[in-house]
Amino acid sequence: MASGKELCEGVEWRIRVVDGSSEVLVPPTGLARKVWLRTKGLISGLGMKVRMFLKQAWDMGANDPRKVIHCIKVGLALTIVSLVYFMRPLYDGVGGNAMWAIMTVVVVFEPTVGATLYKCLNRVCATCLAGFLAVGVHWIASQSGDRFEPFVVGASIFILASIATFSRFIPSVKSMFDYGAMIFILTFSIVAISGYRVDKLFDLAHQRISTIIIGTSLCILVIMMVCPIWSGQELHSLTVRNMDKLSDSLDGCVTQYFTNSNGEDDQKLQGYKCVLSSKASEESMANFARWEPSHGRFNFRHPWKQYLKIGASMRSCAYCIEALNSCINSENQAAESIKKHLSTSCLKVSSSSSSAIKELAESVKKMNKSPNMDLLVEEMNSAVEELHNDLKSLSHLLNPSTTAENQISATGLVPFMEIIPVVTLASILIEISARIEALVGSVEELVEESEMKDKIVAKEEKPEGTMKALQRV
Amino acid sequence: MASGKELCEGVEWRIRVVDGSSEVLVPPTGLARKVWLRTKGLISGLGMKVRMFLKQAWDMGANDPRKVIHCIKVGLALTIVSLVYFMRPLYDGVGGNAMWAIMTVVVVFEPTVGATLYKCLNRVCATCLAGFLAVGVHWIASQSGDRFEPFVVGASIFILASIATFSRFIPSVKSMFDYGAMIFILTFSIVAISGYRVDKLFDLAHQRISTIIIGTSLCILVIMMVCPIWSGQELHSLTVRNMDKLSDSLDGCVTQYFTNSNGEDDQKLQGYKCVLSSKASEESMANFARWEPSHGRFNFRHPWKQYLKIGASMRSCAYCIEALNSCINSENQAAESIKKHLSTSCLKVSSSSSSAIKELAESVKKMNKSPNMDLLVEEMNSAVEELHNDLKSLSHLLNPSTTAENQISATGLVPFMEIIPVVTLASILIEISARIEALVGSVEELVEESEMKDKIVAKEEKPEGTMKALQRV
Repeated sequence: MASGKELCEGVEWRIRVVDGSSEVLVPPTGLARKVWLRTKGLISGLGMKVRMFLKQAWDMGANDPRKVIHCIKVGLALTIVSLVYFMRPLYDGVGGNAMWAIMTVVVVFEPTVGATLYKCLNRVCATCLAGFLAVGVHWIASQSGDRFEPFVVGASIFILASIATFSRFIPSVKSMFDYGAMIFILTFSIVAISGYRVDKLFDLAHQRISTIIIGTSLCILVIMMVCPIWSGQELHSLTVRNMDKLSDSLDGCVTQYFTNSNGEDDQKLQGYKCVLSSKASEESMANFARWEPSHGRFNFRHPWKQYLKIGASMRSCAYCIEALNSCINSENQAAESIKKHLSTSCLKVSSSSSSAIKELAESVKKMNKSPNMDLLVEEMNSAVEELHNDLKSLSHLLNPSTTAENQISATGLVPFMEIIPVVTLASILIEISARIEALVGSVEELVEESEMKDKIVAKEEKPEGTMKALQRV
Repeated sequence: MASGKELCEGVEWRIRVVDGSSEVLVPPTGLARKVWLRTKGLISGLGMKVRMFLKQAWDMGANDPRKVIHCIKVGLALTIVSLVYFMRPLYDGVGGNAMWAIMTVVVVFEPTVGATLYKCLNRVCATCLAGFLAVGVHWIASQSGDRFEPFVVGASIFILASIATFSRFIPSVKSMFDYGAMIFILTFSIVAISGYRVDKLFDLAHQRISTIIIGTSLCILVIMMVCPIWSGQELHSLTVRNMDKLSDSLDGCVTQYFTNSNGEDDQKLQGYKCVLSSKASEESMANFARWEPSHGRFNFRHPWKQYLKIGASMRSCAYCIEALNSCINSENQAAESIKKHLSTSCLKVSSSSSSAIKELAESVKKMNKSPNMDLLVEEMNSAVEELHNDLKSLSHLLNPSTTAENQISATGLVPFMEIIPVVTLASILIEISARIEALVGSVEELVEESEMKDKIVAKEEKPEGTMKALQRV
């Protein structure tokens, strides 16, 4: 018989053997089966995860085919640059350093034209600057004798790398030359140190610069020729889209509250959250857009920074909509009579505000001052005025006694607490309309600045035009 | 005499010459002087800008000496890696490819340990994976004959580069392996293409991997040994700091409003804006913190994601504080009597809320559940209850007639419009207290999860401890 020590957990099947002792029957669900089941579970779980991942990737590609196009562009640029390797004359021309061209393509190719140009220009300028400096340092080092050479080179690398790294923390440098500073350190270190070993220092510097120029030109060509995505255009559309979302959420929230309808699309109501979270992408797009040449309706030096101001104004509206939403979902429900009393004017404010934002979106889209804008703002302000008056007359409906809640039905008066949610909502609405006026101001600034820049560009282009005409004569 | 055509703008000094005609006196302020003045202006303007820039840089360094230390660390790491070049045996060992070690140091050295580890691990893994794949592709290509070799290599580069680029758009890949995907494309392209030219393909792959390992190990050593900055610790301190700021702004705003004091520090009042704008940095820090080994009180697999939840809760409070601020600065000023009526309870809510946030900050700082927390939340809730009651009793002070504004002084009653700002403020305060309760919940979750992880780690470490004890016996 099994001793106490051998007692296992769970049930065992035993069989009595001829000699009277019993033996454990190992069931088919033994260790092997357990391992098999667990492995099967693991595999199917993994398969599930992989399937989910692939589905996610597929959906992403289907939702934004431009991402797929970008990937094809990267593949294309890399395949073209490999031609440099495959064609012997070109390969020999850059002394086997064609690798640098490939590296350049891989690291500078970004989804938007602005980002690619930023990296290309930074890379070329920083490489040239660092190359010249490194050759200079190498010359000084070679004058100081064999013994001191490593020290001079080492010290110069230490000092320049530290300074360049520090400059990357300074906001103005960071926004324009962050990548350049890194490439500066890289090229300087490599060329200065190679100077100690490689005898043909000038050749190295020259090859590195020429391969980088090959790589960057190829990138610029591909990014601008094949379905280009412009940071500026993206920023512009994002701003327009966010305005539309803001307008839809504002109108949707207020309408849902006063009409008690749940038919509104929830995604539409939550649109303002996109506005809240798009600060970082706006900033990076505005940063890259500065590097782009004129494209579409946007000139070089289009007032991209103004978009950031508009973004900030939109966010300040969105904060209020967030507060509005919390009012709407609050536990203290307002009395129906009060809601009815204020609903007309509140709905008027929200609809006029949201059509003002819609008009602003239109105005940004077309980049001209809308003739209806002043009218719409006036309409919004008169709706606010009306809401003010309705609020004033609200006190008639109030029940001055807090304890006499049972009198409500008899007198039609409402206890003060049931007014609070609607009053809060109304005053937030009024605040939103004030913030929309600020938004109108910043959009008008954008349109004016852009028109001014257009005129300057037109003026600058005119003499060139006459020059060309003269040349033709 | 000067003819009409020659009339210049401005005043001219003329001298009558002996023959009766007059000559223009050319003043010393001629063209040369103009150029000189303009150049001087330009130079002094430039000098001013440079001085401003340097001052900004100096201030930045003085405010955060860790940035300076980081720069020195980069210089140090680069100088050490140059030793590889200067010492011939090491140089020969990696076949003149020591450049890769320098490049690795330049590109992977980031200010925080987490970011550096992320880049190092991504770089090493991606290089190994791409190296093996490229060697495999090269073998296949070499089997397909001289004519098809370039096509096979080109096609494989096109396909793999496109897929890897696409994967960088997928959020889960982007957050963990973005840099790795880039390095994968880079290494694969270089090794696959070099395979066509360089005969010693294995050597190339081996050298590249070994130099990268030299570079990354050096980076990891320097970043972790010399004054390390941990992403996790930074995220932790940022969260605590933001909580303090939130608490100060909330209390400051409400106190300023009710006591009409302007003595409050404006920077303190605007502290909530830091909370609004720190989403991006929180996310990147949490992302990098995942790569860090245990440091200080944080274990590997500390619940960093929970900090993001806390950040979101804090932001939802900050949105309300923003709305509160607009109430306080609104044009409709509230009647003093109403302000007085509500000031005690409003101040109580704000001070109890802000001390609850302060306690939360303390609790996050010490990473344990505060014993006072429940008491403070109760206090806050009872203050809210009191505010509710005060609001209810407000209707006694109301003047039901909107037109009888001249009766105010006689009866002490207030027109409805002058109540609105205070009522709005009070209801936003109540909303803030509700959001603080959500914040309390997410902080408690963090503390619990962290304690649980601590226990798991302690358990995992225990058997090891006994093993060691056994070994000693």
